[in-house]
Amino acid sequence: MPLPKHVFSPPFNIVRSSHVVLDVTDIERSLAFYEGTLGLIVEDRVGDTAFLRAVEERQHHSLVLRKSAAPACERIGFKVGSEEDIDKAATFFKARGLRHAFVDVPYQGRTLQVTDPFGMQIELYFTMEKRERLLQLYGRYQGVHAQRLDHFNVFSPELQDAVDFYALLGFRMTEYTEEDGATGRIVAAWMHRKGNVHDLAFTNGRGPRLHHFAYWVPSPLNIIHLCDVMASTGYLENMERGPGRHGISNAFFLYVRDPDGHRTEFYSSDYQTMDPDHDAIRWSVRDPRRQTLWGQPAPRTWFEEGSAFAGTPVRDALFKADVIIAA
Amino acid sequence: MPLPKHVFSPPFNIVRSSHVVLDVTDIERSLAFYEGTLGLIVEDRVGDTAFLRAVEERQHHSLVLRKSAAPACERIGFKVGSEEDIDKAATFFKARGLRHAFVDVPYQGRTLQVTDPFGMQIELYFTMEKRERLLQLYGRYQGVHAQRLDHFNVFSPELQDAVDFYALLGFRMTEYTEEDGATGRIVAAWMHRKGNVHDLAFTNGRGPRLHHFAYWVPSPLNIIHLCDVMASTGYLENMERGPGRHGISNAFFLYVRDPDGHRTEFYSSDYQTMDPDHDAIRWSVRDPRRQTLWGQPAPRTWFEEGSAFAGTPVRDALFKADVIIAA
Amino acid sequence: MPLPKHVFSPPFNIVRSSHVVLDVTDIERSLAFYEGTLGLIVEDRVGDTAFLRAVEERQHHSLVLRKSAAPACERIGFKVGSEEDIDKAATFFKARGLRHAFVDVPYQGRTLQVTDPFGMQIELYFTMEKRERLLQLYGRYQGVHAQRLDHFNVFSPELQDAVDFYALLGFRMTEYTEEDGATGRIVAAWMHRKGNVHDLAFTNGRGPRLHHFAYWVPSPLNIIHLCDVMASTGYLENMERGPGRHGISNAFFLYVRDPDGHRTEFYSSDYQTMDPDHDAIRWSVRDPRRQTLWGQPAPRTWFEEGSAFAGTPVRDALFKADVIIAA
Amino acid sequence: MPLPKHVFSPPFNIVRSSHVVLDVTDIERSLAFYEGTLGLIVEDRVGDTAFLRAVEERQHHSLVLRKSAAPACERIGFKVGSEEDIDKAATFFKARGLRHAFVDVPYQGRTLQVTDPFGMQIELYFTMEKRERLLQLYGRYQGVHAQRLDHFNVFSPELQDAVDFYALLGFRMTEYTEEDGATGRIVAAWMHRKGNVHDLAFTNGRGPRLHHFAYWVPSPLNIIHLCDVMASTGYLENMERGPGRHGISNAFFLYVRDPDGHRTEFYSSDYQTMDPDHDAIRWSVRDPRRQTLWGQPAPRTWFEEGSAFAGTPVRDALFKADVIIAA
Repeated sequence: MPLPKHVFSPPFNIVRSSHVVLDVTDIERSLAFYEGTLGLIVEDRVGDTAFLRAVEERQHHSLVLRKSAAPACERIGFKVGSEEDIDKAATFFKARGLRHAFVDVPYQGRTLQVTDPFGMQIELYFTMEKRERLLQLYGRYQGVHAQRLDHFNVFSPELQDAVDFYALLGFRMTEYTEEDGATGRIVAAWMHRKGNVHDLAFTNGRGPRLHHFAYWVPSPLNIIHLCDVMASTGYLENMERGPGRHGISNAFFLYVRDPDGHRTEFYSSDYQTMDPDHDAIRWSVRDPRRQTLWGQPAPRTWFEEGSAFAGTPVRDALFKADVIIAA
Repeated sequence: MPLPKHVFSPPFNIVRSSHVVLDVTDIERSLAFYEGTLGLIVEDRVGDTAFLRAVEERQHHSLVLRKSAAPACERIGFKVGSEEDIDKAATFFKARGLRHAFVDVPYQGRTLQVTDPFGMQIELYFTMEKRERLLQLYGRYQGVHAQRLDHFNVFSPELQDAVDFYALLGFRMTEYTEEDGATGRIVAAWMHRKGNVHDLAFTNGRGPRLHHFAYWVPSPLNIIHLCDVMASTGYLENMERGPGRHGISNAFFLYVRDPDGHRTEFYSSDYQTMDPDHDAIRWSVRDPRRQTLWGQPAPRTWFEEGSAFAGTPVRDALFKADVIIAA
Repeated sequence: MPLPKHVFSPPFNIVRSSHVVLDVTDIERSLAFYEGTLGLIVEDRVGDTAFLRAVEERQHHSLVLRKSAAPACERIGFKVGSEEDIDKAATFFKARGLRHAFVDVPYQGRTLQVTDPFGMQIELYFTMEKRERLLQLYGRYQGVHAQRLDHFNVFSPELQDAVDFYALLGFRMTEYTEEDGATGRIVAAWMHRKGNVHDLAFTNGRGPRLHHFAYWVPSPLNIIHLCDVMASTGYLENMERGPGRHGISNAFFLYVRDPDGHRTEFYSSDYQTMDPDHDAIRWSVRDPRRQTLWGQPAPRTWFEEGSAFAGTPVRDALFKADVIIAA
Repeated sequence: MPLPKHVFSPPFNIVRSSHVVLDVTDIERSLAFYEGTLGLIVEDRVGDTAFLRAVEERQHHSLVLRKSAAPACERIGFKVGSEEDIDKAATFFKARGLRHAFVDVPYQGRTLQVTDPFGMQIELYFTMEKRERLLQLYGRYQGVHAQRLDHFNVFSPELQDAVDFYALLGFRMTEYTEEDGATGRIVAAWMHRKGNVHDLAFTNGRGPRLHHFAYWVPSPLNIIHLCDVMASTGYLENMERGPGRHGISNAFFLYVRDPDGHRTEFYSSDYQTMDPDHDAIRWSVRDPRRQTLWGQPAPRTWFEEGSAFAGTPVRDALFKADVIIAA
């Protein structure tokens, strides 16, 4: 299939992926996981909501955990380039008849919540309260030394449409997986705004659902230490896949599941993509190296499970791709 | 001093630092250093000129070594965002009466060579021949596993003017060193285009001269291995400073000198800066942590020596800052 | 079962595991693997025999590759404490009616080749030619940076008898796997002479066969780099298991197969055991953490395949243990 | 000078260096350093005495901190091979008219405290209470991930005599520094019992004083992280030397000073030495690589300062070696 052209002047400017809001059923249990084991920093705790960030992030939060009766992804957040971009975004979503609302969100400035054409819940903002820089307060580093939220990966039932829509918003494809042959369909796509491999990736599948959010870590050794810690503190079963090396993105990765099943990736070793003439890399869906340059094949859960968006029904994908699953 | 305002719509779009052209007096000796010890990849060799790149770079070269009677920096190169940006740049330099010329450069598309108001030699291009992706050809990794050219650092005799000029071109300050007090002057500045700490840094001093060009490496362990290799292959004296951690940029660093004295930094652990409301970090010139969060003070050579631009006279700095030098 | 008592004054003094002699069917192909990819140093090449060592080893060889019509393990070698120990060993094996012969072996001093009661081929020596120290010639480090041969692991069909025999020779158990219950049998045992987890390990199974020989490497990052190199130089299929962490020995490990199927482990992170009152660690055969503190279960090949000793018939094990195999 | 012959059957069997007892002036301040920053584990606290160990150690303590009016080293401890070895040691010291006394020491079995011929305070024991194995309780790893006490280094005013005495006790030289020329004197010596580079090293100088005790750590990255932590938690001034690579022992090292000035080394990358025909390595005192394969020269404090043994007068060295000191 022809790839979408890159839109250099999108209707509004998304700078990067910023934060995720998760519904969890037991805040203490979730904090034991995200703070106590993974080592994220709890910046604030207000009633049944906890706000966490990673050591590089000066923004107030990149992960919000809200107590809820059932697990879900409330929404994913992107930072835009200016206050004006928020208004442009409102105009854009209004013109398309898509749900959009300005809401008050703690610690954030003007915030626009929208539903994309596929049912994914998103919020856009320009300003968020800034907090003390932790990057050089090494005494506070714990767990995996997560440095910053890097990207989201979502299951998309209408993959080509999703790719086309986000291309329109200026997301640029860096790598993609495709069926072979003249009529081969795109099965997964990695798209960026901030100049590395991705801010937002799409995987063909029942959705819309959040497949994972990812934190960037400095070195594979941080990930190996996390494996050691999880295996010896009761979280062995929460290690779903990895460590290993993806062909796609070149990431050295580990996927973990939180106590409610939400999936986080720890991610190292990607590359820069800000050149306007940067070429996207095509991977055949039959090339096992795309998912696993080396390492074990992904388990079935990794292909099938994800976090539904709160209050949003999910649909089967338009087609089923032929992926390689661990027996 | 007031910091320059960030210019979001500069007269032309520089994407990132791209490459450096060095005059060296003995190509074989230089290749023994850059290829044989540091592990850069020789992509082409044409007569007395060698073209090298690092493993992430798809562009033909990030380091060009030219045989010459005397060592010098021929020029530093930046990639711009489009062919149109080259023309806009030509217009910009012409309007200011600055030297500018379109030249034929091997492996590059249309290339504009200019002299900045301070005498620094620069070339701008949009397209360069692309070569096979090496990032996942791990069998070709050698030496320090340099991944990509990251930035340039130059001695500037008129530092505030240089900062103001490059701010006009859209370079944004991320960190700076300043004298204390109401009339304190900026002594050094780190400015970026691509979204990390810098593409171009200025250090107050006799110039214009290239202080160093830097390659990004994945991990401090790569740098420690390079120290081991250099110390045991006859290059101990070429290790000028480090390893250590800068306060500024948070870099884990090593500075090495090539056989002609040109200085390269290997650089790890910096951070992202693409937020439009990203705040610059101020360091007092009296704060020893800015240069050395930990590690030995820099030797005198590190403060005083650099590569002059070929054919360009150098001037003393307008003032002398009070830095901390190893006895 | 009661563990064997430690014999502090064995009939002769084995210092440590030293080297392995392998029959391979294509020397060039094997050297492309061991030298070209793993990075071992070829110290000598005499006709159809190649002698390799790792960077810490001052001895002439720890791996000998001999061209042969069929793959096999010729023998494993141990260093003894003195020339007198060789004679004591000869007396010992003679008294038990076991095959023993003094042979000329290139680069080694007086060498005694013996067959243990279970058919395993062993050679004992005190002196081997010494070669230049490479540990600080970092420019010669390649591949996985293997530092020294650490241990052998063999399939033993009569496991308890083998443990008892080697205990008599002063090998001391550090960890073992056992069936549960009052009559639980030992299923695997790790035994040392040199003061770390093992020089020689026994795994219940069809044998005698060499399961693997292991080189110690400094850091998990060396192993991850080897994975990257193997996956991108045509050796993906030669990566059999890992990387992961064993519960037993605490090793961060990778198992690879050479072109003839011989198995090598790269091994990091074990611990010291020289205390005379050091307690052996028991693992239940039903505890999955013993083999895999974290990581994927071992594939069937890892449990079933090994290198027979040249000219030595193999027998089924006396019993079959119930291990956990990847589906 | 001729090196001492190795004594394979010493009068009693010292297995390895085991622990150090330090007098400190403020227990809380010392624990903030050793536990809070370096990450050692406090196993017990009894009144004004704290007992710490590292993660690999099953023994109750390797570091004992005792509140005292003035800083000193109370003694260094070695583990012997059996109860009988303690009695043999008592006999040995008695025969030489050296102070020796059996004392009750908490958590230790029968313990013999002796004064060596040079005034150094030593205790010998065979059994110490064992505690839970922490090596695989990765959730308890903090700071530098110190794994085990590795060795002691002491200033010796009569260096050749000290080397000869400890050689008599079975300590074996692995590396030494010597003046050049036919009458060159040994200036420093590294001697082991346990099979790696050293348990006990001697440096010519005013003594007897403890120069440092060292913990082994798995990787240089652990040391770099400790540098980051110390530099950002108020301990920058406590970092005395390093990180760097010693020629001697091949160690990647960092030396830190505790709040009372006691010196600890963190130490990685050494090698095995258990071969009976292992050759000692000679370094010329004029070879700068012996101390620093690469890195900055040691500061004057590193050559001059150490911890006196409590109640033991110190003497100047018999001669002064010509070492290389940072200006």
